[in-house]
Amino acid sequence: MTSLSGVWAASLTPVTPTLDPDPDRLLAHVTRLLADGCDGIVLFGTTGEATSFSVAERTDLLDRLIEAGADPARIIVGVGCAAAVDTVTLTRSAAAHEVAGVLMLPPFYYKAVSDDDLGAAYGWIFDQIGADAPAVLLYNIPQVSGVKLSASLAGRLAGAYPDVVKGLKDSSGDLESLRGFLAAMPGSAVFAGTELLLVPGLAEGAVGAISAAANINAGHIRTAFDSKAAADIDILREARAILSAEAVIPALKAVVAERLNDPGWATVRPPLRPLTPEIGAGLAEALPVA
Amino acid sequence: MTSLSGVWAASLTPVTPTLDPDPDRLLAHVTRLLADGCDGIVLFGTTGEATSFSVAERTDLLDRLIEAGADPARIIVGVGCAAAVDTVTLTRSAAAHEVAGVLMLPPFYYKAVSDDDLGAAYGWIFDQIGADAPAVLLYNIPQVSGVKLSASLAGRLAGAYPDVVKGLKDSSGDLESLRGFLAAMPGSAVFAGTELLLVPGLAEGAVGAISAAANINAGHIRTAFDSKAAADIDILREARAILSAEAVIPALKAVVAERLNDPGWATVRPPLRPLTPEIGAGLAEALPVA
Repeated sequence: MTSLSGVWAASLTPVTPTLDPDPDRLLAHVTRLLADGCDGIVLFGTTGEATSFSVAERTDLLDRLIEAGADPARIIVGVGCAAAVDTVTLTRSAAAHEVAGVLMLPPFYYKAVSDDDLGAAYGWIFDQIGADAPAVLLYNIPQVSGVKLSASLAGRLAGAYPDVVKGLKDSSGDLESLRGFLAAMPGSAVFAGTELLLVPGLAEGAVGAISAAANINAGHIRTAFDSKAAADIDILREARAILSAEAVIPALKAVVAERLNDPGWATVRPPLRPLTPEIGAGLAEALPVA
Repeated sequence: MTSLSGVWAASLTPVTPTLDPDPDRLLAHVTRLLADGCDGIVLFGTTGEATSFSVAERTDLLDRLIEAGADPARIIVGVGCAAAVDTVTLTRSAAAHEVAGVLMLPPFYYKAVSDDDLGAAYGWIFDQIGADAPAVLLYNIPQVSGVKLSASLAGRLAGAYPDVVKGLKDSSGDLESLRGFLAAMPGSAVFAGTELLLVPGLAEGAVGAISAAANINAGHIRTAFDSKAAADIDILREARAILSAEAVIPALKAVVAERLNDPGWATVRPPLRPLTPEIGAGLAEALPVA
């Protein structure tokens, strides 16, 4: 089994012209990402537009990806939904495929929730899943989800469910936040949620990064992971600055579309809107050579 | 057909001890609300814990409620999901029952979205639904959804889809915000999302209120709607202040449980947690007589 560490790409989810998930483009993309140096991929994270797909679309795409030959040991599946019952459904589906783990947002619609509320929600989900639980990574991305996981709650959950909670992805983008999680859940697999914190994170005990930019920049991120050299982050920072001129998910898809000369790759689901081929070409040209 | 105006309760969604939707308790509750003076009820708004249920649970509960005899002309169905495809599914289900309308949140996971993004998302949803679209009320509740609808976008959508967009519920709690929507979409059915703005809202052209507190306070809200007297808001303000000492949805369920002597009514879904019967009894005693 692939260990929960290293460089993981928060994979984009390609769609067809009718916006249906596209398993063929996805399998080819995942194969490229592994060849480019990723240890694995996260299917249906924020970058993968997870919450823009129905539960049935999500379980079906995972089924198809694995039927088509993808290695489940190199896949972490995003499963967190607004409705905890949907999170249970998706987690069971992922567990049945013996994936490396699942990445679990807290229920994210209600905002005025306490640590005790979120702790009880995670506990309810874990109880529903029972003994077949896969390795769970908690997922902190408060600037998108609107719901912050505290280090103290993460530590409590890791302590209370040691056979289930195996780590966390911190996408806050804040090194202090990452340090808090590392201190609160020693021995757990804590990933930086951005490649920009990969090297400083590794120095403090993080196990690696789950990165959106790895969709277009996996080789450079692999180099930084292997060298652990701060200098190797510079090129990653340059790439991020270029991507950040546009909405990041449409920008990543547009760059893939341009590089593969496959304009359909740029398609996104609502509420995101695709970039034009011209903007995609400009981004691809400006980016450091992959 | 019941017109889109007046006093509508944002109905609670009762659940069984295993957290399944409870159609029997719901039908009894809806019947009481109509008897207490509501013109209709919203099923699966924020107060109804809509986003804590799966799409299948939501369509099934609507089916059962109507099979059991509820009048679809007195029901507005909340349909907005993080995934626009789920919003389409729920809207079709509601349209098939010929309900009075649907209440539609924008896709609410991604936060860095522009008016153009949200406009395109609504447009995509309306195109999918096509000619069978029910009356759509847009739903602005930025403090919970994390996604604000601007008055300018609401006006654009009402103008571009006059056969579909028939109104809006503004749950911002801000009279200035309500005024903005009223000015931007003249002739549309704009509801105050709180009974506290019912009387000032009516004076400026709002058609009524869709209210959470109506679950326990429908008679007083009816009185205020009929009198249009500012003085009749005082008792509604007093009730709100008492409820606000606790999380509002668990508080409303706990009060219903206490009044009906039915402790199971207090059950909520994660990430909310139920109040104790003691707290529910205290709230019920403190509230103005219904």
